[in-house]
Amino acid sequence: MTKQQTWSQRFESALHPAIARFNASISFDIELIEYDISGSIAHAKMLAKTGIISPEEGEQLVEGLERIRQEYRQGLFHPGVDAEDVHFAVERRLTELKGDVGKKLHTARSRNDQVGTDTRLYLRDQINQIRQQIREFQGVLLDLAETNVETLIPGYTHLQRAQPVSLAHHLLAYFEMLDRDWERLGEIYQRVNISPLGSGALAGTTFPIDRHYTAELLNFGGVYANSMDGVSDRDFAIEFLCAASLIMVHLSRMSEEVILWSSQEFGFVTLKDSCATGSSIMPQKKNPDVPELVRGKSGRVFGHLQALLVLMKGLPLAYNKDLQDDKEALFDSVKTVKACLEAMTILMREGLEFRTQRLAAAVEEDFSNATDVADYLAARGVPFREAYNLVGKVVKTCIAANKLLKDLTLEEWQELHPAFAGDIYEAIAPKQVVAARNSYGGTGFEQVRQAIQAARSRSQS
Amino acid sequence: MTKQQTWSQRFESALHPAIARFNASISFDIELIEYDISGSIAHAKMLAKTGIISPEEGEQLVEGLERIRQEYRQGLFHPGVDAEDVHFAVERRLTELKGDVGKKLHTARSRNDQVGTDTRLYLRDQINQIRQQIREFQGVLLDLAETNVETLIPGYTHLQRAQPVSLAHHLLAYFEMLDRDWERLGEIYQRVNISPLGSGALAGTTFPIDRHYTAELLNFGGVYANSMDGVSDRDFAIEFLCAASLIMVHLSRMSEEVILWSSQEFGFVTLKDSCATGSSIMPQKKNPDVPELVRGKSGRVFGHLQALLVLMKGLPLAYNKDLQDDKEALFDSVKTVKACLEAMTILMREGLEFRTQRLAAAVEEDFSNATDVADYLAARGVPFREAYNLVGKVVKTCIAANKLLKDLTLEEWQELHPAFAGDIYEAIAPKQVVAARNSYGGTGFEQVRQAIQAARSRSQS
Amino acid sequence: MTKQQTWSQRFESALHPAIARFNASISFDIELIEYDISGSIAHAKMLAKTGIISPEEGEQLVEGLERIRQEYRQGLFHPGVDAEDVHFAVERRLTELKGDVGKKLHTARSRNDQVGTDTRLYLRDQINQIRQQIREFQGVLLDLAETNVETLIPGYTHLQRAQPVSLAHHLLAYFEMLDRDWERLGEIYQRVNISPLGSGALAGTTFPIDRHYTAELLNFGGVYANSMDGVSDRDFAIEFLCAASLIMVHLSRMSEEVILWSSQEFGFVTLKDSCATGSSIMPQKKNPDVPELVRGKSGRVFGHLQALLVLMKGLPLAYNKDLQDDKEALFDSVKTVKACLEAMTILMREGLEFRTQRLAAAVEEDFSNATDVADYLAARGVPFREAYNLVGKVVKTCIAANKLLKDLTLEEWQELHPAFAGDIYEAIAPKQVVAARNSYGGTGFEQVRQAIQAARSRSQS
Amino acid sequence: MTKQQTWSQRFESALHPAIARFNASISFDIELIEYDISGSIAHAKMLAKTGIISPEEGEQLVEGLERIRQEYRQGLFHPGVDAEDVHFAVERRLTELKGDVGKKLHTARSRNDQVGTDTRLYLRDQINQIRQQIREFQGVLLDLAETNVETLIPGYTHLQRAQPVSLAHHLLAYFEMLDRDWERLGEIYQRVNISPLGSGALAGTTFPIDRHYTAELLNFGGVYANSMDGVSDRDFAIEFLCAASLIMVHLSRMSEEVILWSSQEFGFVTLKDSCATGSSIMPQKKNPDVPELVRGKSGRVFGHLQALLVLMKGLPLAYNKDLQDDKEALFDSVKTVKACLEAMTILMREGLEFRTQRLAAAVEEDFSNATDVADYLAARGVPFREAYNLVGKVVKTCIAANKLLKDLTLEEWQELHPAFAGDIYEAIAPKQVVAARNSYGGTGFEQVRQAIQAARSRSQS
Repeated sequence: MTKQQTWSQRFESALHPAIARFNASISFDIELIEYDISGSIAHAKMLAKTGIISPEEGEQLVEGLERIRQEYRQGLFHPGVDAEDVHFAVERRLTELKGDVGKKLHTARSRNDQVGTDTRLYLRDQINQIRQQIREFQGVLLDLAETNVETLIPGYTHLQRAQPVSLAHHLLAYFEMLDRDWERLGEIYQRVNISPLGSGALAGTTFPIDRHYTAELLNFGGVYANSMDGVSDRDFAIEFLCAASLIMVHLSRMSEEVILWSSQEFGFVTLKDSCATGSSIMPQKKNPDVPELVRGKSGRVFGHLQALLVLMKGLPLAYNKDLQDDKEALFDSVKTVKACLEAMTILMREGLEFRTQRLAAAVEEDFSNATDVADYLAARGVPFREAYNLVGKVVKTCIAANKLLKDLTLEEWQELHPAFAGDIYEAIAPKQVVAARNSYGGTGFEQVRQAIQAARSRSQS
Repeated sequence: MTKQQTWSQRFESALHPAIARFNASISFDIELIEYDISGSIAHAKMLAKTGIISPEEGEQLVEGLERIRQEYRQGLFHPGVDAEDVHFAVERRLTELKGDVGKKLHTARSRNDQVGTDTRLYLRDQINQIRQQIREFQGVLLDLAETNVETLIPGYTHLQRAQPVSLAHHLLAYFEMLDRDWERLGEIYQRVNISPLGSGALAGTTFPIDRHYTAELLNFGGVYANSMDGVSDRDFAIEFLCAASLIMVHLSRMSEEVILWSSQEFGFVTLKDSCATGSSIMPQKKNPDVPELVRGKSGRVFGHLQALLVLMKGLPLAYNKDLQDDKEALFDSVKTVKACLEAMTILMREGLEFRTQRLAAAVEEDFSNATDVADYLAARGVPFREAYNLVGKVVKTCIAANKLLKDLTLEEWQELHPAFAGDIYEAIAPKQVVAARNSYGGTGFEQVRQAIQAARSRSQS
Repeated sequence: MTKQQTWSQRFESALHPAIARFNASISFDIELIEYDISGSIAHAKMLAKTGIISPEEGEQLVEGLERIRQEYRQGLFHPGVDAEDVHFAVERRLTELKGDVGKKLHTARSRNDQVGTDTRLYLRDQINQIRQQIREFQGVLLDLAETNVETLIPGYTHLQRAQPVSLAHHLLAYFEMLDRDWERLGEIYQRVNISPLGSGALAGTTFPIDRHYTAELLNFGGVYANSMDGVSDRDFAIEFLCAASLIMVHLSRMSEEVILWSSQEFGFVTLKDSCATGSSIMPQKKNPDVPELVRGKSGRVFGHLQALLVLMKGLPLAYNKDLQDDKEALFDSVKTVKACLEAMTILMREGLEFRTQRLAAAVEEDFSNATDVADYLAARGVPFREAYNLVGKVVKTCIAANKLLKDLTLEEWQELHPAFAGDIYEAIAPKQVVAARNSYGGTGFEQVRQAIQAARSRSQS
Repeated sequence: MTKQQTWSQRFESALHPAIARFNASISFDIELIEYDISGSIAHAKMLAKTGIISPEEGEQLVEGLERIRQEYRQGLFHPGVDAEDVHFAVERRLTELKGDVGKKLHTARSRNDQVGTDTRLYLRDQINQIRQQIREFQGVLLDLAETNVETLIPGYTHLQRAQPVSLAHHLLAYFEMLDRDWERLGEIYQRVNISPLGSGALAGTTFPIDRHYTAELLNFGGVYANSMDGVSDRDFAIEFLCAASLIMVHLSRMSEEVILWSSQEFGFVTLKDSCATGSSIMPQKKNPDVPELVRGKSGRVFGHLQALLVLMKGLPLAYNKDLQDDKEALFDSVKTVKACLEAMTILMREGLEFRTQRLAAAVEEDFSNATDVADYLAARGVPFREAYNLVGKVVKTCIAANKLLKDLTLEEWQELHPAFAGDIYEAIAPKQVVAARNSYGGTGFEQVRQAIQAARSRSQS
């Protein structure tokens, strides 16, 4: 039989058991319990400080709440569906432990501002953890870059070989993406870290509370300026989900590349046994499950972002029960992003080995130095578009003759255009092709070395 | 320490524990266990029938599998992360129970076709259950409609009162939406109910299997014609999620209406205590949590639909590990839709009471009979657009004079247009206004009665 | 200055010009004009048939409407923003052309049922065209399959070489996906093809209309049974967008493969000049723009699907202005799907060439015949999981020794397991490996030939 | 006939006309033309400054580009599909105007960095315009708030009357949401305002370019540190779409409220004729089209956000043609947000009138002062949860007796609890109920006045 609900005095009859189950959030919002307790402790201290309750009452409440925290940590706290949610579960237990004073905890507060507080405390922590993970991952990429400045790898556009690049340069592109993720989360943190506590149900309260004091106790950076906004705002969660989606975009791109690189056709990396799995039927298989799962999970986070946007669409002020459904999307996104960052960090740190000889061979065997021929001419006064057209024709001829550019004789070059001289061969050698792209942010080795240094110092600040 | 993976012979070293956790699906695909066992039983019988294994081996396998089913039902089967997934967990246990013969189960099969089979068996069951729930919900709506044919309620467009309607007619609109849901799921069922078993890893198998026989044993309606499609198709799950999203659209619309109706401003229904909840701080509150939650959960299902579309986007043939991430989205959508249907059925059956007197009063007090005046004139030869313009002016005058149409005297009517006669008063009385919209599918009482009958017979077929 | 709105008699002052622009849909719903005219003609004929207007009036209306159609086709019809939408634009022009009788057209009708009718007529046509395009594309794939039954190509799972397959078999997987698309659209068509005409604003009408007659004139398969549902249902558009999203999923997968195949690393196809483009700076580039664009456009259609789900979420009955925003999403999805189907059909028909020699070499050089060794043993009584483990070890040894399976001597085989005999070499030759997977739906040549025949006959029915 | 493509020298045969149409982006990227010209001017000046071209050549290029800008503004520039995109269209025209020097413009640049530059310049402008619109809208809300500090309106949670609030307080909640939008866009601006120019195709360039100089000329705040990231990053567009989605969330919420308020049931506002529209059939209707459309358009922007996330998912480095499809989603979102902000600003400024008397009556007639009774007791030492329970019972009794709280006699109050005294009546009068919620951020009049001042000064900084 369903126990009585906390709010049941105005009601004649009990909640339908199926409806009670449907409404209850305790099965997932228990994740917030420590934040809920911390929030309640701050609230209790404030009630005492402002004289709304006596100092002794304040102490008793804090003591009881800390005891519940211990019970929870020891695995002794198991509220049932009849508790409805984590807030009532804690309040109820508090009253069991401490008697009537427990019934004073909810003075000048509502679940509406309480759950908002809990969620922000939770997300604040998670953002910090994720930013830490990003920094760790960036460190792995920098280490890898440092040892691969002069490792060449084909650079692609449209998945066609375009121009060879330094492997370090390639990896640094991901460093940059992650850096934006880190920065973005930092900005969002500022908007997450605002206290709604004291907004009451929607309109504030008649008690002489001190919202700035609770905010200070909880290390919030500010307080919501409007109580109706305070209880109904979920921008902070949506912003986070957008940032999380972008992290997943970046990880999915890197995943796609690792999957390509570990294919037999590319053969640019070897997956280590510690980060690959086998098939149930094909004994030879070694599968890049990690990046595949990460790529697949991007949809999951995008979906949660959409879920919350839909949830908020068209809701009138102030709190509506719909908001209860924000939590699972948020929690699952946090878990997914953290798990994917961890897995990709392990993968890049110890899960794959670049096959540098194969990479070296790869950049020798194509026309990805054709731009350099056009640039060579343009640097000697031929209008770029003309040089480009001329090289286009050369490439066509070479393909027909099954030759590469380096196979052309000097006479052949000079027939094409008198500006060509003996230095053309050096100009189109892969190493030189890479070295020569020494414009700021380019793949030239000198640039890349500076970029690594700059990145290192940025990411340690 | 991580136990050895089933596929580990080709590997030198063990899986990184964090990666093992990341890859493992056992925590959620255990939900498929009974379907997995059923699929394996069918496979074992087929192996025996075709002589790939001996009849005795077949019997042993079936016996072992049934025993695992019993263990699971008795709560005695608890595979750990090292089992990787439900398929290996079952195969491993089978070998523990039955020895070497267990190692023959996976002959001529791959996890790729196996998981596809399991998922389809699962979804097939769920679709049947959901269709059943829809029929039950439709029954509740029909019962409610039957007792409310002559209950009038304002009909709205743009949330402005437009024309009064029969409450039964209003409810039947939802019957129709649900009917499309039921029909749609029936069609999707046909595409879910196709067996991929025997597709192997991607290319079929070298063993002389009989795919039609396993399909028959498992009551599939057909078999996939192409093995590569068979292991990589998730259309059926996406189609289901689209149908689920439409159910949520319909439920969210009904929810919105119940929320409006139970507001003090509308006051069209009273929520019963068994289906409403209170506030933690405002003692007078009685909140329509059920429809609010249902409305909010629509986003969740739309999000899962997007998640799966994203997951499939751009995947090369055939199976990719990304596909593993289809399950949680699917399972959660199934649970959400079922819970929402159940909650809304209870709500409509026993959770609210229409305040018929208030409804009767509502339809007396506005201009929602203005179209009837225009129709009155149009039926007497005045071009509709002219009649419409004339009535527009009348309404404007009435508003200025704080009058309703029924307050105009016959002289006033006739000044407006000579075609008006004494029967205008009857023509604009709410009951008549509703009764007169007797076109097919309209709100006229006669039509509504027929519609209820037709709906009843459709939904019982 | 803004001209007067059609509905302006009840209003004192004019619409704000910016608001008029914001509300107007004429800039995009003009696309519906021919369907609007057809719908109006059917409505006019019905009004005459039922005696609501006179036969002469009916004829005049039809005549006027046909004249507007001619004006439109001749590029002479240019309604401005003040016309608000295509419906008013046509009605207004009709009244200019035919005088007072034009004002009778809107008798017993509302824009709410009218726009629903137009949209369904439009979508019905588009579905037919798309199904036609699908059939054409399937034909191209079948032609390609027919000439490539014995062309081998590596088959992949996890983008790792798994087992070689017939290229025809690979292409037939897409045939199957498209076949589901075709079938699905056919089912959706049935739900699109229902007439809402005569639902009125929301409640039906007081006039003795004949909805079945207009439905018959417009070749609808049925009529909406409930007027409130009739004017507010957009399921049919959402269902279509889901089907369109699945088409895009399939095309994006095929696109990904073509992009991979045309990379230097795979080198399985050569893009023809007629279907590839160059770079603005790299003269050697030949880019697979078509499949890249198609892959990218998948997001666009998924986005439109989401847009419509969001739009419908939580809307109370019946018509709401939000519904006006369904059109651009629908129109753009139709255009996108049609353009992508056309482009991919051209690409597969004449835009690429399979490099069969390279494909033949590819399947010789890897361990994708390892399953066949396990199967070989299993067929000789070794439990599959044991055989699988043994082969796993062999592969590991071979890799260390830089050998392939075919390089092992018979003694080496027999050392591994006495069951090996001289026929092992034949069993693992690529052609045989493919031929042997002759289970139903498998890649065995015999199966593939039958599958092509079956597909051909299915797609011509 | 298709003209020759700019890059066609390497190609043997012409592009298929349908494929040319499919690839071309000129129909929509023409929107970027002025940004493209500005970017090219900066590039030309830099080429001259660094000596890559001569000063005279630089001047000629600038002159030619400015002339194209004039031609475009005068409506004289109409590139066709054969121009492929706006970049080639401009380069081609430049060469027509200036001869060979035009062919030098593309030296040390690629369309990949060029289009990235154009899009950022465009979005930068748009963000500034949108932020300006937000400030204007906030001003309208503040003006409205200022005249309505003491206008009471029911405050809702769960759309049930919860506690009365100041109308100004309610409006300020939206001020706060918009303030976050403004702030967020400001942060995103910083990441939009980074120059990719000089990243080349993907790897930088061999020419001695000066990226910081072009960035300075174009007023960028920084340059991309990695060229591969520079050409393939679309985070900035996705971030913007997320911010745009949140604006739409906020506008959709306000829209929902205006729709509710203008219903007959609420009757809190009267829509002015300048911002409402009529029905085609119901002469009395006055519909809130503006907020309905805005609400509906939220889905559109969410959809575009999803489209771009999907587009980016899993793309390998660096540029891929998929990226071309980012533009229409971005452009349409910008247009939608701007149009919705404009329409809502007009609506709130001049489109509705609050019916203050009706609002005053509304807050007198319910139990939304029940919390105040509980607070009254709690302030007199009764534990809150006990006070709350007691009041719950009182409300139940009142409802049964068809009374409001203010109808209870002092004896009745004191029977309930001896702590009640004569001041209870004052404590529960609506005005006092609102005034008493004077906690920071609450609805107390004093707080609201301070909040308005603070908001005014924040939004003018």
